[in-house]
Amino acid sequence: MKLIQQIAMTLLAMIPAHAGITQTLSPREVPAKAIPVPGTVSPEIQKQIAAPLTPTWNVIPTTADGWREQVAAGALAAEKGIPALLKKLNVRVEPTVIDGVKAFIITPETIAEENKNRLLIHVHGGCFVSSPGLSGTVEGIYMAGLEHVKVISVDYRMPPDHPYPAALDDAMTVWSATAKTHDPKKMAIFGSSAGGNLTLAMVLRAKRDKLPLPAAIAPGTPMSDLTGTGDSFQTNSMLDNVLVASGASCDQRAALYTNGHDLKDPMLSPVYGDLSGFPPTILTTGTRDLLLSNTVRVHRKLRNAGVPSTLQVFEGQSHAQYYRDINAPETKEAFDEIGMFFNQYLAR
Amino acid sequence: MKLIQQIAMTLLAMIPAHAGITQTLSPREVPAKAIPVPGTVSPEIQKQIAAPLTPTWNVIPTTADGWREQVAAGALAAEKGIPALLKKLNVRVEPTVIDGVKAFIITPETIAEENKNRLLIHVHGGCFVSSPGLSGTVEGIYMAGLEHVKVISVDYRMPPDHPYPAALDDAMTVWSATAKTHDPKKMAIFGSSAGGNLTLAMVLRAKRDKLPLPAAIAPGTPMSDLTGTGDSFQTNSMLDNVLVASGASCDQRAALYTNGHDLKDPMLSPVYGDLSGFPPTILTTGTRDLLLSNTVRVHRKLRNAGVPSTLQVFEGQSHAQYYRDINAPETKEAFDEIGMFFNQYLAR
Repeated sequence: MKLIQQIAMTLLAMIPAHAGITQTLSPREVPAKAIPVPGTVSPEIQKQIAAPLTPTWNVIPTTADGWREQVAAGALAAEKGIPALLKKLNVRVEPTVIDGVKAFIITPETIAEENKNRLLIHVHGGCFVSSPGLSGTVEGIYMAGLEHVKVISVDYRMPPDHPYPAALDDAMTVWSATAKTHDPKKMAIFGSSAGGNLTLAMVLRAKRDKLPLPAAIAPGTPMSDLTGTGDSFQTNSMLDNVLVASGASCDQRAALYTNGHDLKDPMLSPVYGDLSGFPPTILTTGTRDLLLSNTVRVHRKLRNAGVPSTLQVFEGQSHAQYYRDINAPETKEAFDEIGMFFNQYLAR
Repeated sequence: MKLIQQIAMTLLAMIPAHAGITQTLSPREVPAKAIPVPGTVSPEIQKQIAAPLTPTWNVIPTTADGWREQVAAGALAAEKGIPALLKKLNVRVEPTVIDGVKAFIITPETIAEENKNRLLIHVHGGCFVSSPGLSGTVEGIYMAGLEHVKVISVDYRMPPDHPYPAALDDAMTVWSATAKTHDPKKMAIFGSSAGGNLTLAMVLRAKRDKLPLPAAIAPGTPMSDLTGTGDSFQTNSMLDNVLVASGASCDQRAALYTNGHDLKDPMLSPVYGDLSGFPPTILTTGTRDLLLSNTVRVHRKLRNAGVPSTLQVFEGQSHAQYYRDINAPETKEAFDEIGMFFNQYLAR
């Protein structure tokens, strides 16, 4: 096994630096490491950190049907855990259709007094291709159940059948419709990974189209830069056990979404957008997250645009591990921070 | 190259996570990497990222005189840049003695209207051993000059002659004295690295001794845990080009300070302290910082104690690189964030 590792390292070292990276400056040579599971996190997060790399992290189907099969298998696995989650959190999920777009209404048994008139719009992750249907509601269920607030989760269209801008169009349809029947000052948008990208892109689109903006947003570890730029794509490569490495499955799925469009278009890579006038924003990431850089870059860009923006970074966590285990205390911490942030900025 | 990458990743995926290591939880095997300088930061920060490892990062003198020589050489180098810095920022520095403790009064030519009655106490970094005298004032000069506020920088006693608690005693002497002649509601404490440790320890000590607390604090990349615990000691090892690795020079210097005391004593490792009742706190770090974990751990602990606390993380930066180049736009960003934070929480 040592030999395989050495060959692999040698081959990786042969890969030239990314486009957009300064070639004249010396790279940092970092030796191979065996990094232990830290003792500074809960046993539940330790278990996630100790888990092997996502089995499909670099399994790339070569046909549309191949992708559909992989997505269906992932969705089936995710859906298995949902009944127990709903029971534990006292939440119910009902499918609906809003102006032709599929969505789920997620309602906790108890809605907090301050949230009676509030509504959150959730856009799920899954690298723009995974987590269709019910399987995409998990993060929305966490939010509804932990923060006692009503959530609508958008079941947006996805590749291989529906590339950009289908997902964003669907999310905007739901936003426009709900912002008519609800006061947008009492609404927020949230979602992680591809959902973080879409959350940011929705605000850019709402700005462009002069639609009402939400009162706050919570993009979690957003795929804010689809050009492959961001230092942690390198520094946390093979350390993050969820996305694992740049150019692997998640990026291949994102490529089905971008489908030949200019990757620097802010609707695809929101970090390149004009973030002035954005609503207050809370961002969440982890120290081992492959998207650590692309979360903090958005944070800095928002702050430089004068937007009230808060950053929370969780010790040892890889990509979006803050909503993988309802029993992890860090999970409740992450959602409570977002809940408090929304409570601060949303009208009642 | 794409093919090579795929082969490398496939081979890596074949390596069992626990190869050859017997532990309850499997460590993460991360291959060697050559990590380019990111294109996502200013040219000034790129230059810092591209710099070789600190030449003395693992040069450990074996005698007290050896340390004194190394410290003197470092101080001489740092002091060389100070006259130009003072000129650029229109700041003057005067030595003083406060209740027997050496300090520097740092005064900008223009004090901002809102800062007329405010005073900041600065505790410098240098792993508890380095940056004596004028050489320890650099961060204080940045703050005074960029934020137009008066600063007193404590020139606390250090090992090898004066181990713990001399530095903390000196800092507290200055705090107690100045909090009598100034309104502590108009005062803040700040400092990076060992200065971040001391900033946190000062508040713990003030709490313990029922002294007035500052209105806000800004511990930058604090050495909050001297026990060697914190995931980024491993994940950012050999990536951070300032501290470089756990157990190296900085930790050896810290050991001269702790000098046999219990490392888990919160006065030495403030992350283990009771942080309830702390004043609003702004923390600063970088994605490549060896102390990234020990910065975010303090942030989470403060938030869980209900303390208003803000975290800023700079793309690509190693330990405390936010005050190494006055021309880097990220330097002004970092200090402006702290300045705005102080302005929010300090009385006028």
